This record gives sequence, C-alpha cells and structure tokens, in this order.
Amino acid sequence: MAASDVKILGAWPSPFAMRPQIALNVKNVDYEFQEENLAPKSELLLKSNPVYKKIPVMIHNDKPICESLIIVQYIDEVFTSGPSLLPSNPYERATARFWATYIDDKWFSALFGTAKAKTDEEKATAIEGLTSGLALLEEAFEKISKGKGFFGGETIGYLDITLGSFLGWIRVAETLTGSNYIDETKTPNLHGWANKFCSDAAVKDLMPETEKLLEFAKMLFSRGLGAQHK
Amino acid sequence: MAASDVKILGAWPSPFAMRPQIALNVKNVDYEFQEENLAPKSELLLKSNPVYKKIPVMIHNDKPICESLIIVQYIDEVFTSGPSLLPSNPYERATARFWATYIDDKWFSALFGTAKAKTDEEKATAIEGLTSGLALLEEAFEKISKGKGFFGGETIGYLDITLGSFLGWIRVAETLTGSNYIDETKTPNLHGWANKFCSDAAVKDLMPETEKLLEFAKMLFSRGLGAQHK
Repeated sequence: MAASDVKILGAWPSPFAMRPQIALNVKNVDYEFQEENLAPKSELLLKSNPVYKKIPVMIHNDKPICESLIIVQYIDEVFTSGPSLLPSNPYERATARFWATYIDDKWFSALFGTAKAKTDEEKATAIEGLTSGLALLEEAFEKISKGKGFFGGETIGYLDITLGSFLGWIRVAETLTGSNYIDETKTPNLHGWANKFCSDAAVKDLMPETEKLLEFAKMLFSRGLGAQHK
Repeated sequence: MAASDVKILGAWPSPFAMRPQIALNVKNVDYEFQEENLAPKSELLLKSNPVYKKIPVMIHNDKPICESLIIVQYIDEVFTSGPSLLPSNPYERATARFWATYIDDKWFSALFGTAKAKTDEEKATAIEGLTSGLALLEEAFEKISKGKGFFGGETIGYLDITLGSFLGWIRVAETLTGSNYIDETKTPNLHGWANKFCSDAAVKDLMPETEKLLEFAKMLFSRGLGAQHK
C-alpha cells in the first residue's frame, strides 16, 4: 500500500494517536505521519475533524476518520493484510469492546488524574481508581488471553492497543507518585503482557521514552491543559 | 428464537435500555424484559454487570453483555434474521460510530442538563449544547440518509437507535424549557425522521409517554439522581 493513501494526524505524546499507528503496523500498512502542535492546529486537522478539532485523525483515500477506537475498528475492517484486531467471535468482540470502553470512559481519567491532581485527596482518589482498574484488567487478562500472551491471543489486538497505548503514561504516573502500578507482584499478568507489548515490532518505535513524556506531562499540566483526545 | 434465550435487564424510562429492545425488534427476535428498580438492584443485574452495576444488560445463552451500544453491535453480529443495523461499508460504519459516540459522550449531557440544571446559566449552556448538537445531526442526516428516511437507509439502523432512544427525553426537555428543539422549521430533516422513527413497529410500543417521563424526570432530578446508564 502506498504511503500516500494513509495519513495519520497525531502527536507523539498522545496515547490516542499511537493507537491507529500500532494498528497499521500490525496490519503491515505503510502510512504518513503528520505531527500536530497543540496550537495552532493545522488547516487539515480543522477541516478533517470539524466537530472535535482533535487528534488523531486518519485520512484514507482523502476521507477523514476520527476517534481513535473507531479508526482502529476501521483499519481492522479495511485492511485484511495482517491478523484481525478484534476477535471473530461476537461475544469475545463484545467483551473486548466492553473493556476498551471501560478504559477510555472510566479508568483513563484516574490515570491522568495522578498527574493533574492538585490536592493530596485528589491524588489519592486518582491512585485508587488507577489501581482498582488495573486489578480488574489483571483478572480480565487471564480470562481473555487464555495464556496466549496478548488480550488478542497470539498477536496484538484491539484491547492490547487500547490499554497498551497508555503504558508510557502509566510509567509517568509511577514516577510522579513514587509507586509501581504494573509489576510482578501486584499484576503479574499485566507485567508480562506489558513487556511483551512494548518489545513488539509494531510498538517499540512508537512508545515514547518515559523521561521525555514526563517533561511533557509537567509542561501540559502546569499550563492547565490536558484535555482528552480520543 | 425462544424468548428464554434472550433477556434484557432494563427500566422503562431509560433510553439506553430501549436501544437493545429496538434492535431486537428490528431483527424480529423475541426477548424477555426484566424491569429493574433504581434500588435495590436485582442479584441478576449485580452478577451480570459487576463493573458498572448498571442497566441495560442483555443475557444471551446465559452470558451477559453490557453497555447499550455494545449490545446493539452484538445483536447486529449475532442475529442475521433482520436488516443490518450497521452499514456494510467500513467508511459508513465509521461515520455511524462517530455520530453515535458524539451523541453519548458529548450531546447527551446537554440534553439531561436541561432537566437537571440548577441555575439559569447552567440551563442556557445546556440548551445551547442541545441545539448546536441537533444542528450538527440535522446536517449529518442529509449526508448519511441520502433521502431514504432513516440514518440507516430504508430501515432503522445503529445511529437511528442511538439518537431515537432519546426522543422521549427531548420532549421532556421541550416541555421543561418551553421551547421546541426538533420541529419543521429548525430541523426539518430530524422532524420527519422523528415521526417516522416513533411510528415504526419496532419502536412505537417502547417509546414512553411524555407526561409519564416528565413525572419520572422531576422525581429523578429532585432526588439528585440521574447518573448515566450506558
């Protein structure tokens, strides 16, 4: 597939922008990446996502697709050149969608909360939300992966991409709060999974260095930014 | 299909609980409906949706599926006895998913905001969000439906169900604020669509009477309730 057919508008620190890129890598589809600034936003971004004006946007054959998880599903449906991202069984597909929605709608705000909390109480609430969510995902991993290494089985799938795109930010949260959230003791399943995910060829060049992300996080939250991209 | 194979745990005023029921009606699948109270919640609900403990839940062959839009997608994938709910074209499918996500993640809070607003300023913000969202959907309808009557084409589809399930609550908002939001002047496309949707055989027995819903809304918001079911 020619690179010009597929373009991603994103930003390196964004877990949401990482998702379509991982999906395209899993599918072996070349793409062009356009780095967007927080401001000013490019004309192409404003034109392609007039409702939210947010990254990521994927442009495929001149048509824009918005919202990271919708883009990943679109990639799965359009490109059959690599393994399926969503399970073929409808019940397993509903389960993957359930946990992906849980991660974005509920757990994500706790993860970011650890970095943007202003009071000790806010920080404690965020840490509690972060750890209790990971405990649920640790348990879910065992049922869903069936010992195959990924939520998606032998290869990276929809739920791996959804959670895995946050691993850099989990490390930022660990550094900022001085505590591990994914490790061999608390979350042995997720610990093994995270290592496997980050070293996968589809992921390793996309995962930002923790130090660099930490600097970005400090800048972002000190400026009162950090609005959710999805 | 025997009724006992499919069970919906829901509540009559819930737009979210209406969605899987409309989807099953479109697919001509019989189901059993179990009315849940706000409190106490049934053992079956708590067991079936331990993460959110919320309606709707669909139980199919003893397995629970949660989150209304995930259930509707599951119904579409499992029951091929009726028309497809999601378009077959991946780009059109992504577009339907985009607007459905917009409705639930952004527009819905404005709709409910008109009923639960405590100050004039909150009410004005809610009304602005409600009307600007409907203006976007009015425009989207023209592009998506291509003159066929529904967002889904000739028959009710995914996006029709997502927005249509709120029509009772839009009428409540209209009564509470003394203004029409869907009418022939402001939103001619949606006005025609809403009439067609509400009189469809898959919908008409499920749409609650405005008066009854209004009484429920007053009770709900006076008690400070109204948490989002999804």
